[in-house]
Parts: sequence; C-alpha cells; structure tokens
Amino acid sequence: MEIVCKPIGHVSSSRRELRDDDWDRESSTIALDAGVFSSDALLGLEDFSHVEILFHFDRVPTDAITTAARHPRGNKDWPKSGIFAQRGKNRPNRIGSTVARLVAVDGLTLEVRGLDAVDGTPVLDIKPYMLEFAPRGAVRQPQWATELMQGYWSS
Amino acid sequence: MEIVCKPIGHVSSSRRELRDDDWDRESSTIALDAGVFSSDALLGLEDFSHVEILFHFDRVPTDAITTAARHPRGNKDWPKSGIFAQRGKNRPNRIGSTVARLVAVDGLTLEVRGLDAVDGTPVLDIKPYMLEFAPRGAVRQPQWATELMQGYWSS
Repeated sequence: MEIVCKPIGHVSSSRRELRDDDWDRESSTIALDAGVFSSDALLGLEDFSHVEILFHFDRVPTDAITTAARHPRGNKDWPKSGIFAQRGKNRPNRIGSTVARLVAVDGLTLEVRGLDAVDGTPVLDIKPYMLEFAPRGAVRQPQWATELMQGYWSS
Repeated sequence: MEIVCKPIGHVSSSRRELRDDDWDRESSTIALDAGVFSSDALLGLEDFSHVEILFHFDRVPTDAITTAARHPRGNKDWPKSGIFAQRGKNRPNRIGSTVARLVAVDGLTLEVRGLDAVDGTPVLDIKPYMLEFAPRGAVRQPQWATELMQGYWSS
C-alpha cells in the first residue's frame, strides 16, 4: 500500500546548508500554490501564535534511511536508539514535524521563525498549534535527548 | 512532484467508528512490520513519556478534501477558517499529527493512550516527544479553537 502526497508549497529559508543547530535564528516563508489553493486557505491562521509544519526531508537519499537503531548524531556517548526513538531525519517516510512561531500571514504566504527545514524543503501540511494538542500529563525524556537539544534552537 | 509514503504499521484502537470527541478514553496499539523493521527500531522509546504519531486519514475520500475555508465542524458559530487554520481531517495530504501518552513498548509493538485515530488507520511515523519541541514563547489561539477542543480528549 502506498500513500501519495503532493507538496502544498516549499520552504524559502535563510538557511541553505544542512546544519544541525541554531534554528531559531532562521526566518522562513512558505508560499502555497495559488493554482491549487483557494485564496482563503490560510484565513484566520493569524489568530494563532504558532503553527505546526509537516515537511519532507527531501535531501536524505532513500538508501540512507535507517530502519534499525543507531547512536543519535553518531555520538557514542548517547545510547543506541531505534530510529523511532529519535527525531533524526534519516527515518522511514522522511517526514519532519516542527512547531514554529508564526510571524505573518499575507494571502497564501506565511512567514515563520525557527523552522528547522532548509531552503527548498517541500511542505506537506500546515496546522495551527492549539494548546490542547500539548502532551497531557507530565513529560519525561532521557538525558541524551536534553543534551542533544541544548543548542538546537539557539546556542 | 509526488512524495510516496508507506505505512510503517497500522493502529489497532478501541474506537472503530468515526466520532469527534472523548479520545483520551481510547487505548491503541501500533505494531511495526517485522519484515521491514529491525527488532531494535523502537529501542529506547520507553524512556519517553509521550510519542508524536503521524498518521493518514484514510477514511476521507479524496473528493472530500478541502483546499479553501469552511466553518470548523460545520458550526456557523465559529468563524470560517482556512483548511490550514484548522486541524480537521478533510485536508490536503490527509495527515494527522497527535502527541499521545506512551503506555508500553514490547518489541516492535507500542501501546498508547489518547490517540485520535480510528482502528485500522495507517501510521506514517512515530517520534519521541521532546520538551524542546514544545512551542517557544507564549501560545495564543482564537476562542473557537478552545471551544472546539473542550470535549476532545475527555468530556
């Protein structure tokens, strides 16, 4: 069974090279295709402070996809973890998911801050972030994840 | 341009019918295909309290997909909102994204609580929820979203 998706737009980002950290400094815009989407496809989005962006890690070659475990970022100080126990990009279906700050909406274009997708990345979906979609109950995570994320947004 | 995805597994859920609210009562399991994934694909996931599940709204017929604005849940008390300014399932690419509580991991099977996907739903990705992927900065949302979500998890 296959599920066929089409990009709804592409990321234009101030980051052009693949690099891991410091994403909060990046400014990005996403323009939806006016030939596909009605001019009101983003209507009301500006009432939300944040958006969840689903995107495709298209720079990852299919033969680099992992279906097993590996050390996050190849760092042997961190425990070997299954590909679904980490958020690395070499994952089956190569889908990224990030909550970014919404800066502005203008027609079919939105501007966001802190999106960890490089310039040209295909976008699969845009969802408004609702408080009720935060985790219910206390969040627990291993120490390696906290360490890995230390400089991810800002160093 | 097309992006082809393959389900990594399917949801087995206590909810079989399409219904909007009260999702926190549902218990679900997701079994990864042992023929595709290494036995350690979920290794270490149990160290996280929550998982983000990306899934495919496969019960939505393609001709029901919206590319414009509509009243959320057809409720005219709530403002007409672009499909990307709401989280409804009749959306381009039909991808859902939810953070659920992780109950248990057993080999290639995980059990979660509060996943808003009906029985049989194809799963596209499983990511560990990390605190650092919460929104940075204060969250703001319109009143209609708060009202819509009131009974979503529990009534």
